[in-house]
Amino acid sequence: MQVKTYPEFSSRYPLLLTSFMHRPVRLYPEDIGVVYRNEAGEYFRFTWREWYKRTCKLAHALKELGVKPGKPGEPGDRIGAMALNSHRHLELIYAGTCIGAVSHPINVVLSREHMVHTINHAEDKIIFVDETILPLLDLIYDQIKSTVKAFVYMSDRPGRPQTRVEPLYLYEDLIAGQPEDFEWPLLDEDTYAALYYTTGTTGIPKGVMFTHRQLYLQSIHLLALGGMAVANTMIEMIETIMTSRADTVDKVITDGGRWQELLTALVKDIPRVNVPLVNIPLFHIHGWGSPWYSVASASKIVFPGRFSPQAFCEIVQTEHVTSAALVPTMLAMLIEYEDLKKYDLSSLRTIGTGGAALPLGLKAKAEKVFPFLRAGSGYGMTETAGPAILATLKRYMLDWPKEKQDEVRVKTGLAPLGIEVQVVGEDGKPVPHDNETLGEIVLRGHWILEQYYKDPEKTQTAWRDGWFHTGDMAKVDQEGYIIIADRITDVIRSGAEMVPTVLLENLTATCDQVLEATFVGVPDEKWGERPMALVKPVPGASVTEDDIYRFLQVEGVDKGKITKWMLPDYIAFCDAIPKTSVGKYDKIAIRRNLSEFLSRAKKMR
Amino acid sequence: MQVKTYPEFSSRYPLLLTSFMHRPVRLYPEDIGVVYRNEAGEYFRFTWREWYKRTCKLAHALKELGVKPGKPGEPGDRIGAMALNSHRHLELIYAGTCIGAVSHPINVVLSREHMVHTINHAEDKIIFVDETILPLLDLIYDQIKSTVKAFVYMSDRPGRPQTRVEPLYLYEDLIAGQPEDFEWPLLDEDTYAALYYTTGTTGIPKGVMFTHRQLYLQSIHLLALGGMAVANTMIEMIETIMTSRADTVDKVITDGGRWQELLTALVKDIPRVNVPLVNIPLFHIHGWGSPWYSVASASKIVFPGRFSPQAFCEIVQTEHVTSAALVPTMLAMLIEYEDLKKYDLSSLRTIGTGGAALPLGLKAKAEKVFPFLRAGSGYGMTETAGPAILATLKRYMLDWPKEKQDEVRVKTGLAPLGIEVQVVGEDGKPVPHDNETLGEIVLRGHWILEQYYKDPEKTQTAWRDGWFHTGDMAKVDQEGYIIIADRITDVIRSGAEMVPTVLLENLTATCDQVLEATFVGVPDEKWGERPMALVKPVPGASVTEDDIYRFLQVEGVDKGKITKWMLPDYIAFCDAIPKTSVGKYDKIAIRRNLSEFLSRAKKMR
Repeated sequence: MQVKTYPEFSSRYPLLLTSFMHRPVRLYPEDIGVVYRNEAGEYFRFTWREWYKRTCKLAHALKELGVKPGKPGEPGDRIGAMALNSHRHLELIYAGTCIGAVSHPINVVLSREHMVHTINHAEDKIIFVDETILPLLDLIYDQIKSTVKAFVYMSDRPGRPQTRVEPLYLYEDLIAGQPEDFEWPLLDEDTYAALYYTTGTTGIPKGVMFTHRQLYLQSIHLLALGGMAVANTMIEMIETIMTSRADTVDKVITDGGRWQELLTALVKDIPRVNVPLVNIPLFHIHGWGSPWYSVASASKIVFPGRFSPQAFCEIVQTEHVTSAALVPTMLAMLIEYEDLKKYDLSSLRTIGTGGAALPLGLKAKAEKVFPFLRAGSGYGMTETAGPAILATLKRYMLDWPKEKQDEVRVKTGLAPLGIEVQVVGEDGKPVPHDNETLGEIVLRGHWILEQYYKDPEKTQTAWRDGWFHTGDMAKVDQEGYIIIADRITDVIRSGAEMVPTVLLENLTATCDQVLEATFVGVPDEKWGERPMALVKPVPGASVTEDDIYRFLQVEGVDKGKITKWMLPDYIAFCDAIPKTSVGKYDKIAIRRNLSEFLSRAKKMR
Repeated sequence: MQVKTYPEFSSRYPLLLTSFMHRPVRLYPEDIGVVYRNEAGEYFRFTWREWYKRTCKLAHALKELGVKPGKPGEPGDRIGAMALNSHRHLELIYAGTCIGAVSHPINVVLSREHMVHTINHAEDKIIFVDETILPLLDLIYDQIKSTVKAFVYMSDRPGRPQTRVEPLYLYEDLIAGQPEDFEWPLLDEDTYAALYYTTGTTGIPKGVMFTHRQLYLQSIHLLALGGMAVANTMIEMIETIMTSRADTVDKVITDGGRWQELLTALVKDIPRVNVPLVNIPLFHIHGWGSPWYSVASASKIVFPGRFSPQAFCEIVQTEHVTSAALVPTMLAMLIEYEDLKKYDLSSLRTIGTGGAALPLGLKAKAEKVFPFLRAGSGYGMTETAGPAILATLKRYMLDWPKEKQDEVRVKTGLAPLGIEVQVVGEDGKPVPHDNETLGEIVLRGHWILEQYYKDPEKTQTAWRDGWFHTGDMAKVDQEGYIIIADRITDVIRSGAEMVPTVLLENLTATCDQVLEATFVGVPDEKWGERPMALVKPVPGASVTEDDIYRFLQVEGVDKGKITKWMLPDYIAFCDAIPKTSVGKYDKIAIRRNLSEFLSRAKKMR
């Protein structure tokens, strides 16, 4: 049987991010596609055609700067970005990857030492830098200047900054005068597109490579997941609209109106275009993949600049934002914001919360302001380029009461089509789905890292027996939902038992008076280790260590969620719990200062 | 840079139909997944777990029968099916493809000569045959028995039939006693999965091969398209529910109820599970791909047996069918059905129509019965394994009046993400988007055929310059929508001009009194060819040839849809226009009997 007597993409048409870039400009060239609000409150709006033209121009400029494409197994030049979220950053991501180079978003909230390491390890050929980040670049310049061949300065204002960084090109000058179209190469789909670094909670950051194929398949599967959960989306949307428009609807009824009026009102409120507010920094795994699926789905992408309640409300009102993801601290600031009621936030259809567990007290308060709030969960890591497990409801849960649904939504979740997950014991076999037995989460699928960059040893340690080993401990409940318990390295080993700290942290955070809580092991002569809780109370709350302990007994032990020996031996109140650059509890830092925390802790048992 | 020091699917996790099969059994093992209603009106219902077990057993049986898997470039054994739609047929499709063999659904409405050709050309090793199709197999047995090594008989009743076909195994006996699980191989994604044959409108049927990767990517892209068009789906759903529940809604209003009641009523009516009625025979390109995306999305798949208005109504009511696709003749039978009102068809959310153009008169009548009816369009062929162009609305069209939307819905449409389309002139360059210039539709993308099976010459003719040449003529309108005009081989060449017959046929079909219409060329001394119309009027309609001609003048020429020289020289009324096995007008047969049609035609000019 003769194969390939004709052009190559008859069976192997490549899965390229380039296709995502083309979709909105073909369908909606004159729609506003990208909005950026800078620190000064100025708005920059671009139609898809304008954005595409600027991206084409930048591609020409990158070629002129000598950026070389890669091929399977051999990455193209790495292009670093020390940048916040903006249209320029999005242009750079597409121009870079679609010419076959590798986009390396540099995490600028890493420690300086780690940041320097990622740049030198990645061997970034060019670094694009924001005006606001330039001072930081100045600080590390000496340690990276032998690696990086050129720098490009991105600013909303014309002119050259004072800096010793060189050679320094100006972004807008670079693209001015370039051709407005570009002949994008038909790359091999296994060409590397992105290089992300882990945040280094467990040592030096590790580089993680992803190909066009992997990022494409991630987005298309997540979009398909939406297509398969239309009933879910629809019910939530209708509930949101009817709830937020309760007055209008009741008025129609009182006035003896007819159903056609209701229909018109209801249909009018369904957003025609998704308008996601992209708060998550693009330097975190490209904002969890949002540039990929948001461009592919021709959403109107809004980059809001730094978070403040005022900026948030203003931009939601101005741009008719439909969805936003907020971490609990942002949400807390927002609902306390005194001018909140002055803004029209009625376009909002989805507020997801993620990051830390949402404290129950905050949740109750927030739901009064945003009745459609849904505390989301899910699971992803640098090695999965975004979400790999999602706390989606099964369809028979759609008719459960909201409280019971919320219990599912805060689980770690299920693997979507495209990802296989198992929780395996030390024998490598899947643990029973008994909501009890702990094992390690292992993954394989279309968007699990190919390898740690230039680190075959770590790659082989993680990729074993055909599965990627995450190092996270979890249990599985009777319905197949995974519930994360701990990092393997963070688990507290008390006698022969393992105390799962994430479970304890989430439980403690549901206490009304608790804003944040973490658990670490304290050396113990008899048991090896025993748990200590670090607790940050809600500002102004009058709560004691004994209250917390009692809460864990009543809500945890008595309700069968934890066992008695998981109760902490020590509880320490603190104003600030050490955190990493991505907001996770920094247990390395806590352990480093263990005696200090112990000295102010209360012994509970 | 070292690659592949670790298991192969780290970057190349394979795109396999096996993943589709696993999804529903993991998520909803105890839900009814497959329903089959046989000719006798008996229902067979299977949970996903039961269906999966039967599929595993069948896989073991296929192995025992010696079925060999393939690898990239080298197809596995071909398994033919001469079968209508049933759970067994679906089991066979998955068991066969997921062990690495090739599923060949045999088109049993082809001419006998062509059917024999497809079986011998495919070299089917085994043929699975339905009880109802066995007599047909008996007829062709002598011509295929040297090719086919074994036959498997599928029936709802136990026992061995009278037949000379041998060796003949009984399906249920074969799978009885086999293990209930199967270790599915991790195939290469480029393993061939399906072999389809064209219907031979233009000669001997051609074999078209598709790989796991291609069929997987088709489904995942179509599902993602649903995810990107949620606003569209939602608006249609709400309109459907509110319209069909107008009484309930008005009652709540009249009674001075509150919006919570409306909300509850509305939300209750949103189907939790898609329940597609799979009317399209699986022997037509696997029912346009529905086994793939319906299993992947864990829809409840209903196989209704042969179409009759009574059977249709009964099964919709019994199984709460949510969507069905009907060709115009089925729709016409249905709305004339006297007992229609005795059934509860309120679960229906979508009725798509396809195949031929929906006559305006029928459309108006049907909309009174099914207010949510949407005359769909789209474009696909054996070479695209299902839909490749879809008449989806752009989002700004969601607020257009329904009539204007319907005009878009009957266009051929737009290429979805995953497919690239161009309409090219004879110079190979894209034609302008002027709604006028004709060119050939060329395609490339993830689910365009890899090759014609064992026919490198035809493959090379079709795959040229990096594009698959469809042989279909079309124009492109200002918004980028493709509008099909004709098969290149069917186009009527009148002088230097081309008369596009599909355009004329669709226009004629919109006449209230016309049920079906087709156009062919008649030899003409001066012009080479001139058009003749064959028209089948609506039963009982009093319409003359002159009426038709006047309709084409007023609705076509006067409104600028066609030019004057496209008006037919002859119009012939007939009771039955010859059609192919898939319901397309059989122009080869018409041309064969041209003089007969001409003899009863009226000369118009």
